[in-house]
Amino acid sequence: MALPFITSVVYGESSGKYFLIVGVLAIIAGHIMTKIFSAENHFYAREGFVSVSLGWIVLGLIGALPLWLSREIPSYIDAVFEIVSGFTTTGASIAPNVEVFSRCVNLWRCFSHWLGGMGVLVFVLAILPMAGGGQNLRLIKAESPGPSVSKLVPKLKTSALYLYAIYMFLTVLMFVLLVLARMPIFDALCTSIGTAGTGGYGIKADSIGGYSSLIQNICTVFMFLFGVNFNFYFFFLMKRVKEAFSIEEVKWYFIVYTAASVLIAINLTFATENGFFYNLHHSFFQCASVMTTTGFSTLDFDLWPQFSKMIMLGLMFIGACAGSTGGGTKVSRFIIYFRTAKKELSCLIHPRSVKIVKMDGKKIEHEVVRSANIFLICYVLIFAASLLVLSLENYDFTTNFSAVAATFNNIGPGFNLVGPTQNFGFFNPLSKITLIFDMLAGRLEIFPMLILFSPATWRK
Amino acid sequence: MALPFITSVVYGESSGKYFLIVGVLAIIAGHIMTKIFSAENHFYAREGFVSVSLGWIVLGLIGALPLWLSREIPSYIDAVFEIVSGFTTTGASIAPNVEVFSRCVNLWRCFSHWLGGMGVLVFVLAILPMAGGGQNLRLIKAESPGPSVSKLVPKLKTSALYLYAIYMFLTVLMFVLLVLARMPIFDALCTSIGTAGTGGYGIKADSIGGYSSLIQNICTVFMFLFGVNFNFYFFFLMKRVKEAFSIEEVKWYFIVYTAASVLIAINLTFATENGFFYNLHHSFFQCASVMTTTGFSTLDFDLWPQFSKMIMLGLMFIGACAGSTGGGTKVSRFIIYFRTAKKELSCLIHPRSVKIVKMDGKKIEHEVVRSANIFLICYVLIFAASLLVLSLENYDFTTNFSAVAATFNNIGPGFNLVGPTQNFGFFNPLSKITLIFDMLAGRLEIFPMLILFSPATWRK
Repeated sequence: MALPFITSVVYGESSGKYFLIVGVLAIIAGHIMTKIFSAENHFYAREGFVSVSLGWIVLGLIGALPLWLSREIPSYIDAVFEIVSGFTTTGASIAPNVEVFSRCVNLWRCFSHWLGGMGVLVFVLAILPMAGGGQNLRLIKAESPGPSVSKLVPKLKTSALYLYAIYMFLTVLMFVLLVLARMPIFDALCTSIGTAGTGGYGIKADSIGGYSSLIQNICTVFMFLFGVNFNFYFFFLMKRVKEAFSIEEVKWYFIVYTAASVLIAINLTFATENGFFYNLHHSFFQCASVMTTTGFSTLDFDLWPQFSKMIMLGLMFIGACAGSTGGGTKVSRFIIYFRTAKKELSCLIHPRSVKIVKMDGKKIEHEVVRSANIFLICYVLIFAASLLVLSLENYDFTTNFSAVAATFNNIGPGFNLVGPTQNFGFFNPLSKITLIFDMLAGRLEIFPMLILFSPATWRK
Repeated sequence: MALPFITSVVYGESSGKYFLIVGVLAIIAGHIMTKIFSAENHFYAREGFVSVSLGWIVLGLIGALPLWLSREIPSYIDAVFEIVSGFTTTGASIAPNVEVFSRCVNLWRCFSHWLGGMGVLVFVLAILPMAGGGQNLRLIKAESPGPSVSKLVPKLKTSALYLYAIYMFLTVLMFVLLVLARMPIFDALCTSIGTAGTGGYGIKADSIGGYSSLIQNICTVFMFLFGVNFNFYFFFLMKRVKEAFSIEEVKWYFIVYTAASVLIAINLTFATENGFFYNLHHSFFQCASVMTTTGFSTLDFDLWPQFSKMIMLGLMFIGACAGSTGGGTKVSRFIIYFRTAKKELSCLIHPRSVKIVKMDGKKIEHEVVRSANIFLICYVLIFAASLLVLSLENYDFTTNFSAVAATFNNIGPGFNLVGPTQNFGFFNPLSKITLIFDMLAGRLEIFPMLILFSPATWRK
């Protein structure tokens, strides 16, 4: 919280003192707790999952305090929604107009994306001295996006530092390019950290729509880049270029993204009076925004024809690559789904043939396939339950469905009442709590949040 | 087609002659084909699946001819939609007003439900002499609803005959009760065979809404009964009552059905001015209709509040029991999904514990779980693809989503433009073909239809 406090000092804003107060109180509270509760040496999977899920919940509850205390967001539940939406890199706001926020609050909102993007605990892990090997891998496993975590280099801490170096480098590069494209420095800072986390909080009422085409194109490229599996950059750094380009997930990510953008541009060219390349410019931006689950917009895609909207909805569910900062189901899971389905079908035809499912030339372990299947089951069940709770408010189906899709996949905007030009402020507290749960479940890939509800978790 | 022809003779209708012509031609064509193509002795899984899927497609193409030739349905694609909707026990009609159809056409529509309900090929199997053991089990496996087929008695033909006896007995019982409740005999015949197949074609514009409460209640009870796993009745017949009541699927089917009906009645009592018991009467009817995927209605549930509509949507996806005439995902698959998810979660907490997933006291085989998972994957992918094709027409999301849900789950009515008082006639041919595919895929539980698209199926 030092960063927003410094911002408030620079711009002379009164809201900033609450960041200082809450930050100091949080440090004190943390110190007291570590004194009272002795550190357990035995740190099993259960403790790992619970630490992560409770950690993220506490993060939201405390991160919301400055927003609420400064009265910039008068309701505490709204403040929690806003900052959980930030940390989970969702970018769904309760504010009708974000331009009324002070700069320190807007920076805090965007900075929460940057922190959340790579996983707050992994961040702590990379900077703080490490206590032991096993427990950290468990923490990373619980909060890393995507079906599997492979250690890039033998030492976990080294891996984390490499990833952070790449993350930092891309963020700075984007910031510099935005400034060179004549974006105001504060805007460029917020936009680059918001893009890095694939978050999507804008600091303008029209998101990125008011900036120049060049700035929009820079955003398009970097949104896409932050949705790429970071192993890709890692291999590049290690000069293993051939391996980098042989990652199947990245290939399919590129194919799906390009195909979706071109299809939408064609659809828009038939449905509207705009030219193909104008449409392509915007469809590339919007598809990158939705597929990487960033959530920026240059126009109101809720006004697009139904076919384009369905492609967008599809991208919302597919999401970005595993091992990126993006959310959603992840491209690699879809590859697993397609290939296992294909394999099963051919097993039906030739029951005695033995087939294995491969990705990147390696056999996909049975464990990974099973976990992806369970993910799908839990995903569908949580989605249905959330939809049911939201429907108590009697808004239309499109609004409810896309509100759950936009929060569960950590995107931000949906359709209709939660479209790109709208906000989530009108929901009642019960719906907001449900959506907060969905954002956390989406960011932590479901299991850590579900485990909180299992009686076995709390048994001695 | 003899039955509608006889009906037309009784009521002196001119459309009836087309049933005679098409029926005779079909018999001749069939005879010629069996002469030209010699019977293969080797009948593997592949041949089984392809026979079933092609068989059902041909059934639809030929079954539609009398409707089209008699000009009662002027468009051939509409006629195919209508009769596939019949055979798959969907009950989604393209006709704005079914009361203009002649009686023989209405009987043919309802009778197609009855035939489709238990699986046309199983029907043939039970009546015709049997060629061999293995191939018939494969045929049944390919077209029986639900995750697994267990042989009830050692001899397959005996099983099939028992099931048909139960089916026939319940149909006749319902017919008699409806006549006793003073329903006209022709109406009672159509309603009872339509209910038996869990189809849902009405012969009145307001479905069952215009009949007395008593008749509606009889329908409610029998819709529910035809959604029960037929093993339940079989055990009763064998005097194994204890076993009958220990079928977990039937228990959960009853619990979900009752809970949904009561919740909707409460929701309606708060949202409307009608009394609780009036609402309960209608919610019991509508829930039975949707959960068993029959599709009759006594009122326009599209006017219900959003919460009730979401419960209905949930029931649409859950569907009836495996081993019944109903469609949908089936209660037993949901039991499998819940239990495997629960098991996986507790494995995350206690990685070294070994847990097995059970149903009815027996371990659920790994094969069954895997097949249920692949079912879910294919289900979601086909659903998304269908939604995308329908969205080309630019109707709203609720219409498209519920149109796919209502056909894929073999229900009939959806929401909005395809609500209970509407019809499917307005879609263009591409959408209709997509929905026809969905109906067939839903009825045959996906795999037989998907296999048609696999190149391996057509290789020598």
